[in-house]
Amino acid sequence: MLNKNISEKVIGRLSLYGRLLDAQIADNVSYIYSHQLAQKAGFSAAQVRRDLMAVGYTGSPGKGYATRQLLESIRAFIDAPTGQGVALVGIGNLGRAIMAYFAGRQLNLTIKVAFDTDPEKVGRVIHGHRCYALDEMPEVVRQENVIVGIIAVPVAAAQGVADRLVRAGVKGILNFAPVPLHVPLDVYVERIDMTMALEKVAYFARRKLNLRNE
Amino acid sequence: MLNKNISEKVIGRLSLYGRLLDAQIADNVSYIYSHQLAQKAGFSAAQVRRDLMAVGYTGSPGKGYATRQLLESIRAFIDAPTGQGVALVGIGNLGRAIMAYFAGRQLNLTIKVAFDTDPEKVGRVIHGHRCYALDEMPEVVRQENVIVGIIAVPVAAAQGVADRLVRAGVKGILNFAPVPLHVPLDVYVERIDMTMALEKVAYFARRKLNLRNE
Repeated sequence: MLNKNISEKVIGRLSLYGRLLDAQIADNVSYIYSHQLAQKAGFSAAQVRRDLMAVGYTGSPGKGYATRQLLESIRAFIDAPTGQGVALVGIGNLGRAIMAYFAGRQLNLTIKVAFDTDPEKVGRVIHGHRCYALDEMPEVVRQENVIVGIIAVPVAAAQGVADRLVRAGVKGILNFAPVPLHVPLDVYVERIDMTMALEKVAYFARRKLNLRNE
Repeated sequence: MLNKNISEKVIGRLSLYGRLLDAQIADNVSYIYSHQLAQKAGFSAAQVRRDLMAVGYTGSPGKGYATRQLLESIRAFIDAPTGQGVALVGIGNLGRAIMAYFAGRQLNLTIKVAFDTDPEKVGRVIHGHRCYALDEMPEVVRQENVIVGIIAVPVAAAQGVADRLVRAGVKGILNFAPVPLHVPLDVYVERIDMTMALEKVAYFARRKLNLRNE
């Protein structure tokens, strides 16, 4: 159910509503009003209603949205019907952290294969994932029908890994290396920089403290 | 060296330049021109020069910036002079992943204390960090002079944890829970949503593939 005109921001918000609904369902909440979901998500109720119109689920005016049905509609909209495999490149501290994190989620997405240059790691099973050499990427990625890659390698190696992923047929990359990637227009990239985020927080925490003490 | 007028974006970019310079120095590169750093960072050379003016380091017109000196100037600008401790709340899969990730960096920031509600974890040392109960937060956070917190708890617990951190004196929070936090104006918050990022990448990867096949 891929809509050509849906924006990145809408998909991001739908993903967020999904997690908020997971939490509501875990708390045995059966119905939720758009303004309640909006308050939790930090957007306006009008925004929430507009986003949910895209997934084609309408709540009842009296009771709001049925949490389970709304969640199913969102998942049907965002997820691939049969689940999606992900290739992880780089099994250092960060790569293992990413494995541990996503292993704990119940997502439609699962890390299926992992790659590393370290001969010590290649051929081993790490956190339940068989580790392959970079040269095996074209074959393995095609065999497993993977079109999503995660890059968790050092800065200097990131672009080379991105080139390999693209050549192997990957169409979306989540890049944890703090460097912009040059990829063809038909490949989607998202970057997460955890160090930058923490350094910003630390800097502005000190500034907030100093402003108070002045 | 806290400049009141420096923006979040400048600090984010300086953090990025720092990591790019780390990589250059590891490759024994002694000098770098602003346009080279700009190309690696994905910004314009003018932007890089403007940002670096803020840290007060000027390169030589002939040779560019001396990588080591520039890095030192950036670190002196961003970092606390004596290092900064961080409190991590939540030691599930995500919390452990964050510990492993930051343990692998050589940052001025270190996770000093960790908190969890699980009685099985409290009192134990996990990944080298002593784990405390939430009730011990005010005392421990003050004792360790911590003003930066990382939230890695489930959605439902995140706001309560934020309130506790703020009451304990924390002034900056890196929030991994997919929910906006309500905090006083004198507290800085940054959010990272790894699941949202991966779900977006997976959705748009499928769309890119489908567009090609149409």
